[in-house]
Amino acid sequence: MSPENLADPSWARVDGGAHDRTIEENWLFTLRKERFRSRTSGLAHDFFVIHLADAVHAIAITTEGEVLFVRQFRAASGRDSLEIPGGLVDPHEDPLVAGARELLEETGYAGDPPELIGTLWSNPSIVTSRTTTIVIRNARKVAEPKLDHTEELTVEKVPMHDVLGLVRSGKVDHALVVAGILWWLAAEGSPRG
Amino acid sequence: MSPENLADPSWARVDGGAHDRTIEENWLFTLRKERFRSRTSGLAHDFFVIHLADAVHAIAITTEGEVLFVRQFRAASGRDSLEIPGGLVDPHEDPLVAGARELLEETGYAGDPPELIGTLWSNPSIVTSRTTTIVIRNARKVAEPKLDHTEELTVEKVPMHDVLGLVRSGKVDHALVVAGILWWLAAEGSPRG
Repeated sequence: MSPENLADPSWARVDGGAHDRTIEENWLFTLRKERFRSRTSGLAHDFFVIHLADAVHAIAITTEGEVLFVRQFRAASGRDSLEIPGGLVDPHEDPLVAGARELLEETGYAGDPPELIGTLWSNPSIVTSRTTTIVIRNARKVAEPKLDHTEELTVEKVPMHDVLGLVRSGKVDHALVVAGILWWLAAEGSPRG
Repeated sequence: MSPENLADPSWARVDGGAHDRTIEENWLFTLRKERFRSRTSGLAHDFFVIHLADAVHAIAITTEGEVLFVRQFRAASGRDSLEIPGGLVDPHEDPLVAGARELLEETGYAGDPPELIGTLWSNPSIVTSRTTTIVIRNARKVAEPKLDHTEELTVEKVPMHDVLGLVRSGKVDHALVVAGILWWLAAEGSPRG
């Protein structure tokens, strides 16, 4: 986070949250209405806020120079989506540890210690979740995937130099995955295909 | 969308949505629980789906070669966020028209006819919204900003060659904005700073 982002926000919580209201609470998220007041205008406004766990996803590069993808159904698009492996970070879990864990569970692959690419707010206007992107090099298959009972996914391996093409052609069209891939490519500075 | 993405999804709606349930409905979104059944396992599962309008944001490049940014408060991060101008697409509105409209409302700038960079699912596991990224060149100030009464934002101009640095340094940390910027830079093929 940069100094500007850490500076005092231009709106502040009102009365320590006394006017806030929980609309829905379930195993996945809590939906709330939270009141803030503008430091500029003095005006108060209730914002919808979805409290959702942070997420992590991994660019896993095999010893053969391929990147691991998983294809799985996504209910809100109603389609199968080509993504890099990932999932939710458990409470108090290090995102790098979570990323290696999700990679192993979803694909059966493990590799070098994870390297951090960066962390972004997934959609800070409405969701509290942040998404961390990591790179795991020298990934090799060490186990069978271990999926939750509603998780069905297929693993696909894509040569590193073809990854940008997946974005350009619209084959990868999940914005958080695209942000992670392009950030990795910008950091790597090379395999632009 | 690629052919793979348009292929039959691996899960299908159950009984035409007869088991679905609306949890919350407001001016911004509808939160529902929707039942799908796996074509592979036959297992049914209820997924949370947030029906939210599509969004658009604009890379607006001024006649001086600067990109327009807006800084505004985001309730779910509790911070001010540096973003490119944008907003929700109205029902039946062309995203390119919506992007030019949002640019004008938020900054008072207008420019050449919008060019499409692409459209991504914002977070297809839980939100129906897609985000379209457009480019508007030769932007110049033609009016005063026209903001909603809870919209408070400041406009900042950043030389085109410094935009990648804003992502690398974490000064721009909204994932959808990062996806749009990096996709534009990959398409443009040049101003990498």
